[in-house]
Amino acid sequence: MRIREATAVDWPHIYPFWSEIVAAGETYAYPEGLTSEEAKDLWMYDHVVVAVEGDQILGSAKMGPNRPGRGSHIGTASFMVSPEARGKGVGRALGDYCVSWHKDNGFHGIQFNAVVETNITAVRLWQSLGFQIIGTVPDAFDSRSHGRVGLHVMYLPLT
Amino acid sequence: MRIREATAVDWPHIYPFWSEIVAAGETYAYPEGLTSEEAKDLWMYDHVVVAVEGDQILGSAKMGPNRPGRGSHIGTASFMVSPEARGKGVGRALGDYCVSWHKDNGFHGIQFNAVVETNITAVRLWQSLGFQIIGTVPDAFDSRSHGRVGLHVMYLPLT
Repeated sequence: MRIREATAVDWPHIYPFWSEIVAAGETYAYPEGLTSEEAKDLWMYDHVVVAVEGDQILGSAKMGPNRPGRGSHIGTASFMVSPEARGKGVGRALGDYCVSWHKDNGFHGIQFNAVVETNITAVRLWQSLGFQIIGTVPDAFDSRSHGRVGLHVMYLPLT
Repeated sequence: MRIREATAVDWPHIYPFWSEIVAAGETYAYPEGLTSEEAKDLWMYDHVVVAVEGDQILGSAKMGPNRPGRGSHIGTASFMVSPEARGKGVGRALGDYCVSWHKDNGFHGIQFNAVVETNITAVRLWQSLGFQIIGTVPDAFDSRSHGRVGLHVMYLPLT
């Protein structure tokens, strides 16, 4: 598996698992039922990468400043791993890449704004990379299977 | 003083204090040096109101869902009070309006994502309306006078 920068021609291979993950209703507060073009506008900006094995795309991550202006020294990122590629360490590889990319680009820290508290795999993965839970907004995510659950704000200082 | 919905013709009267507040570098992580049109795109969407006295606009607030999809039951808001109108209760009037508007529109809670910790007036005002600090992202705002300071995530449950 390797991680490389994504280009526009990768999007048709990202969109199937991207939309499947959003439709599952467990991890992301994106609008549901977006067209491929609408979803592309929400994902393919700032720095976007894909995890690939041969010619297969296993996952994608996007990263960049969490806020403009006087908040732009803190980064943020989002991650999608194809359900077919789960358990292969794709999330960890993308997470490691994300931390390195932010360090290389001089960010002061990385903030995740909305980690669903019932997404235990993600919470544990980020914690294993050094992220801490800054706080949890109660009931802020309407999980398909769990009902209303909290959204963690997580943070990793880099300097 | 009364609060009414803003229309496009109000924007030229909002932009002077909006840009002055952003340029002061103490409270908002908007890009600096935006044109009036660029700033308008960042402010004049969702539900936007102005606080007026006679024909003078003293402040403005915008509010709406904090996230789309499965996060849209939590609202958020931003506030700008003209520096010339400080100390007249404009922020409190806009804050009270904001809480009522979210209740009337069936929101489950209100989340402020980035309250600068050195903006004591705002922090105390939101606390007096019942908001609690969920957590603070350290060093996340580059204040012109204080250097890097924390950004509070604040939350008010409504149901």
